[in-house]
Amino acid sequence: MSSRRTETGTGVPTGADTGSDTVGIAGEAGVLRRVLAQLAPSEAAVVGPGDDSAVLRVRGDLVVTSDTMIEGPDFRRAWHRGFDLGWKLAATNLSDVAAMGARPTGLTVSLAVPRDTPVALLEEIARGLTAACAALAPGCGVVGGDLGTAPVITAAVTAIGELDGTPPVLRSEARAGDQVAYAGDLGLAGLGLTLLFSDGVDADGVAHARGIARHLATHPRLLAAQLAPTPPIALGRIAAQAGATAMMDVSDSLSLDADRLARASSRDPEAAETSSTKRSQAVTIDLDSAGLLHAFGEQHGESVPLEAMLAGGEDHGLLAAFPADTTLPAGFHRIGSVVPAVARSAALTLDGDPTEPRGWDPFTVRLPGLGEV
Amino acid sequence: MSSRRTETGTGVPTGADTGSDTVGIAGEAGVLRRVLAQLAPSEAAVVGPGDDSAVLRVRGDLVVTSDTMIEGPDFRRAWHRGFDLGWKLAATNLSDVAAMGARPTGLTVSLAVPRDTPVALLEEIARGLTAACAALAPGCGVVGGDLGTAPVITAAVTAIGELDGTPPVLRSEARAGDQVAYAGDLGLAGLGLTLLFSDGVDADGVAHARGIARHLATHPRLLAAQLAPTPPIALGRIAAQAGATAMMDVSDSLSLDADRLARASSRDPEAAETSSTKRSQAVTIDLDSAGLLHAFGEQHGESVPLEAMLAGGEDHGLLAAFPADTTLPAGFHRIGSVVPAVARSAALTLDGDPTEPRGWDPFTVRLPGLGEV
Repeated sequence: MSSRRTETGTGVPTGADTGSDTVGIAGEAGVLRRVLAQLAPSEAAVVGPGDDSAVLRVRGDLVVTSDTMIEGPDFRRAWHRGFDLGWKLAATNLSDVAAMGARPTGLTVSLAVPRDTPVALLEEIARGLTAACAALAPGCGVVGGDLGTAPVITAAVTAIGELDGTPPVLRSEARAGDQVAYAGDLGLAGLGLTLLFSDGVDADGVAHARGIARHLATHPRLLAAQLAPTPPIALGRIAAQAGATAMMDVSDSLSLDADRLARASSRDPEAAETSSTKRSQAVTIDLDSAGLLHAFGEQHGESVPLEAMLAGGEDHGLLAAFPADTTLPAGFHRIGSVVPAVARSAALTLDGDPTEPRGWDPFTVRLPGLGEV
Repeated sequence: MSSRRTETGTGVPTGADTGSDTVGIAGEAGVLRRVLAQLAPSEAAVVGPGDDSAVLRVRGDLVVTSDTMIEGPDFRRAWHRGFDLGWKLAATNLSDVAAMGARPTGLTVSLAVPRDTPVALLEEIARGLTAACAALAPGCGVVGGDLGTAPVITAAVTAIGELDGTPPVLRSEARAGDQVAYAGDLGLAGLGLTLLFSDGVDADGVAHARGIARHLATHPRLLAAQLAPTPPIALGRIAAQAGATAMMDVSDSLSLDADRLARASSRDPEAAETSSTKRSQAVTIDLDSAGLLHAFGEQHGESVPLEAMLAGGEDHGLLAAFPADTTLPAGFHRIGSVVPAVARSAALTLDGDPTEPRGWDPFTVRLPGLGEV
């Protein structure tokens, strides 16, 4: 990594450690020193931040995943406190590790920000990263990264995890007859985003915090689900140990991601490129509206409509298939089943009827206030 | 990773595979299909792109490093072809793996681009990534990543490598008496950047390609060193096996990075936070101008002044310390020695005299045409 530690006296301005400094004043070494002070170590790190690369102790096969959050398309500073942003950065990457049945061990974080960004904001992001690791994946921590400049805040995270001896749980191994289950919040983050866009932007689409103050009082869980989600990271290992046949985290929407899981698990060569064992049968995931409403119709005191469950994204819960006779681990709720494909083009049905996947495509969805982004 | 593969017919527009498509037209699935087609697999990948995370086979301790390149501060589209950008993204991360004495095995790549970006540009980037891996680190490949939108092209890469049984070569273990050596281009990339800024920007600092056409004819190696560097990746393992005591890649400048290596190897507790064994003695790196000029005064037919060697960045060569009696591996050239510290504040000397480190600080250097970035 290039987050090298330089010291005062090297000719690189380092600035004073005052809360009002910008990164342009503090310089790379000064920023880095303050950010590193907010991090807790990874238990797997043999060499942590400060050298060209980190070194991690690994016992078996390794899981690795990357995700980026960019100011504008992925978050707005008016809504997202630095702490929440750091938390969400960690949570969304940890969930991709969990979705393989793995245990997260380390994160690398690349932060690029405008020069006038307060160093204190970067410290808050680091605190959020640290807190999310402590809460969701104890023992995991930031092992490295880099710092740079960008026109908007740009955060790229890579998460690494260990399988601890079990094979990875792919999205491509669901079998007809399996039960389909989900763990975590479902639809809350999407409802939170709707609240933010309905009252948190002005006529030009510019985000502001004042319009959402009353929602913070009345629907705190919806906003928290969007701004700082708490995916069930530990359930990834538990699902793998319980024999999950396929699993993925739901980031774009339940309908989109269930459709993807069914297609990945089907024998159609176009749809099954990621499958290691080509199935002799295409499968459909049939979601059960009664099961969804029973398990997720009310969450944290919020009433959640079926459509919000199907089309809302960013909850980062775990969608998994288990053999029919498996007792679901605590935290998972049955929401449907894997069935032989009802038609080549219908990988997803709801109560037996084909339903259109709908959710988030970063390149085609247009958000208010983003212009040509 | 969230680079999920969706298929046509899911309700997500995928666009046609024509060269003129933008990512906004092609949609995530369409972009992903075309980008993935340009990648070659990593030999270490048990599960490659397409699931929540990639799975890598690892035999021992793991090396991991991240680096980001952002349009504006780190590259200009007028100068950087997509292929070169992909190449440089790979090369700069591979060099951080090599600098630990490790062998690169896999990359994750997060790309975020404006909606009007041609898909063909992303394909070029992918081809550059693939070509750099093939040339510099055979067997290494892209194992995952994600795609998203951003106001400017934003590319975050994480590289993973294996130590193959040798301990990592830290920057903090140089000892008084060691010889200091360097492998790779030195100063060329900085001279290339000077050419680009002298003739490749208009009065407002906007980059253009027309002013650099003659430099492409007369100084192709200087521009190539800046736009698509070729660091000596394989020499990282070779240096470790030859007994290098400390090593780092030179990305910011030889003077800055040699100063960092000396400080990291010193007992000063502030300067030695990354050292695993606190030395009883602070050390200085004494660079030898005659050695530098002898080995690097002429490179690829270009005459390189001493100051360009000391202050130019981005060559990503390997700076290493070896015991005095070690025969340097082919490719390394002696450029100085590690000596007992001459003064607490002078970690770097040139021909015995204290010299000020100078080079690149991303937060304090201002580049033409970047305004408030």
